Amino acid sequence: MDSIKVFCPATIANISCGFDVLGLALDTVGDLMTVKKQQEKGIEILEVTGQDLPKEAHRNVAGVAGMALLQQADYNGGFSISIDKKIKAGSGIGSSAASSAGAVWAMNELLGKPFTRRQLVEFAMEGERLASGVAHADNVAPALFGGFTLIRSYNPLDIIHISPPGELVATVIHPQIEIKTSDSRKILKTTISLEDGIKQWGNLGGLIAGLYTQDYDLIGRSLEDHIVEPIRSILIPGFDALKKHSLEAGALGCGISGSGPSVYALSRSLATAKEVAAAMKTVYDKLGIAYDLHVSEIGKSGVRVASPSEANFN
Amino acid sequence: MDSIKVFCPATIANISCGFDVLGLALDTVGDLMTVKKQQEKGIEILEVTGQDLPKEAHRNVAGVAGMALLQQADYNGGFSISIDKKIKAGSGIGSSAASSAGAVWAMNELLGKPFTRRQLVEFAMEGERLASGVAHADNVAPALFGGFTLIRSYNPLDIIHISPPGELVATVIHPQIEIKTSDSRKILKTTISLEDGIKQWGNLGGLIAGLYTQDYDLIGRSLEDHIVEPIRSILIPGFDALKKHSLEAGALGCGISGSGPSVYALSRSLATAKEVAAAMKTVYDKLGIAYDLHVSEIGKSGVRVASPSEANFN
Repeated sequence: MDSIKVFCPATIANISCGFDVLGLALDTVGDLMTVKKQQEKGIEILEVTGQDLPKEAHRNVAGVAGMALLQQADYNGGFSISIDKKIKAGSGIGSSAASSAGAVWAMNELLGKPFTRRQLVEFAMEGERLASGVAHADNVAPALFGGFTLIRSYNPLDIIHISPPGELVATVIHPQIEIKTSDSRKILKTTISLEDGIKQWGNLGGLIAGLYTQDYDLIGRSLEDHIVEPIRSILIPGFDALKKHSLEAGALGCGISGSGPSVYALSRSLATAKEVAAAMKTVYDKLGIAYDLHVSEIGKSGVRVASPSEANFN
Repeated sequence: MDSIKVFCPATIANISCGFDVLGLALDTVGDLMTVKKQQEKGIEILEVTGQDLPKEAHRNVAGVAGMALLQQADYNGGFSISIDKKIKAGSGIGSSAASSAGAVWAMNELLGKPFTRRQLVEFAMEGERLASGVAHADNVAPALFGGFTLIRSYNPLDIIHISPPGELVATVIHPQIEIKTSDSRKILKTTISLEDGIKQWGNLGGLIAGLYTQDYDLIGRSLEDHIVEPIRSILIPGFDALKKHSLEAGALGCGISGSGPSVYALSRSLATAKEVAAAMKTVYDKLGIAYDLHVSEIGKSGVRVASPSEANFN
């Protein structure tokens, strides 16, 4: 196999009480990417559609992630990459991570899978370093593992994969405003009260328990964030209304996706997730804010070979 | 049934990364208590052996917890209680909680189980309020539910029961020194760094995942505490040596039990837990510190009817 076309999922990081540690992969929202072996060494970005991104490999996250992999690979050639970006940059649903993760996953397949998923995460983190200045795994981990991922520790990198409860569906609304990850991080305080900390790890414990036992009520009760959401939500227009109406429409929980501005909700069925989407739509229609709206199941596999319908779509 | 004899387990609260939220019940370390229905209203403490404790019901944690239950019960009589204390007061393994939990569990049995376990926890918390000034559930929750308990929230009270992985065995060493819970709480800082908070909830997430998947290595990796242990361990003689030698002897993890001074370790077999006990013993023998030493599996049921051998023992 010399060529592969992959689906690179959008991801939700910082899931409420899981700030900096818990993320999930979406099933039907993501980019498409074609990766081909070539004799020439290094990475060549052949084409980027859907978005204006650098084509020089060292300035493109897929290129940088790919080069990190090539440095460790027993392979004398290189790869060409064509990317069809569907996830908007700065959306807060892991646009750069999708490209980084997709590139290294595809290359690993073409080389006969010499690397573990954990190693692929480490390569993809180099793409995140280019994108945001920090080699974080919040989005590349769920993009590569699928389902939910808990990053227990960075040193050493310890990622726990959790299969998603089958009935869980995500709704994501992306207001067309820009918040830079770096700005969004700057407004956070560097200290928190011990009391809020205890609430946060109590909730994260509850959420992880809910995911393993498929206890949707517990998942809902645990989707709280007393630390980051009260601060960052100020940057997101209509956040309180989005959350209120999502919960009234039946969502289990609702919070900020990544560092925003996207807002996510989790629901217990596709029907409810669609009602939540309608409720979110109403809020932004009233406020006159442009948005993208997604409803997706949780992706079980992360990056994967594109399905025939996805492949034809491009 | 007018009389019941129960085993009231010792408990380990504040399990490393689970400060204030995660506890467990021991299987073979605990008190014995006999509770009898009587016509006279209220609670009468007939006898306390093994420890010098108040016999006035309103000054005895079992009495106070029992009165909290009686206030809600559809019952015109009262109860007498005889307690054989084996868990030393101030040990950090839930001595007061064992009495509070045992009393209300026994009364609930004698009344035909009108109350849920969660309600029993609320009654028993009144005993904790008497003992420490704070109606916490850290020890009474595992004493009543057995296994591991996660207190996700106090308002409303939300307790998640987690069955213990079958091969997990606890070692607990109790140095004969006194640390008051109130003092032990005073030395904690009221703020923590966000960075340490993230490590803590990452570890708690990992620990909960490890308990559900019976991943003993993950349990071990997650048994870290960057927040409370570095401060409180200063009050415990030889803590660093106890921890070092426990881990070298094969323990998965080691930390402070409750607010100390007891130190616990968790291991993956009875044999390893015994080796850990021997390692702990050596440390305190060298330092010339008197101690009690316990090795116990995790109790699956919490408070329970005393077994025939336990019943005869008293």
